[in-house]
Amino acid sequence: MKNPIAQLNKLFESRIRLGIMSVLMVNEAVSFNDLKQLLDVTDGNLASHLVTLEENGFIKVWKGFVGRKTNTTYSVTRAGEKAFKQHLEALEQMISGLR
Amino acid sequence: MKNPIAQLNKLFESRIRLGIMSVLMVNEAVSFNDLKQLLDVTDGNLASHLVTLEENGFIKVWKGFVGRKTNTTYSVTRAGEKAFKQHLEALEQMISGLR
Repeated sequence: MKNPIAQLNKLFESRIRLGIMSVLMVNEAVSFNDLKQLLDVTDGNLASHLVTLEENGFIKVWKGFVGRKTNTTYSVTRAGEKAFKQHLEALEQMISGLR
Repeated sequence: MKNPIAQLNKLFESRIRLGIMSVLMVNEAVSFNDLKQLLDVTDGNLASHLVTLEENGFIKVWKGFVGRKTNTTYSVTRAGEKAFKQHLEALEQMISGLR
């Protein structure tokens, strides 16, 4: 039996990071508040995962304003898209190995 | 857009727990050492995840002897099988939502 988790990317282990990447893969850019609402997570929890994904070059951050309010939005980078697709393929292989 | 991670089970978040459950789903019973070798993890890391899965009723532990050496083996419980299958289905839905 092959190691079923060898190809999984530790950086995408957390459910919340899976959620962030899944949302950003199918949206051009998503605001912090929309991510927080959609994934049903706390500010602090979401912020810490976003920082890790950004530090690893998987997402980009845009800081702008809507009126006088700051509006931070996130989008996936090409490297992020590639790495996440590889992770999803490894997950699918792990799952199909159980059938 | 629906929350893509709402149905994911936090207890199966860690890669190592995914690996343990995947191996036990397709094997009657597996020893600690075989799990350790197959998943390429340290004793301490593997042991802590096994304890969590056992405490949640997802795996069973058998402590026996081979000659004079202790031999601990693990197998998945019916509850574990059910919960893990639900988790895998949620992962598959998350992935297919990206296609």
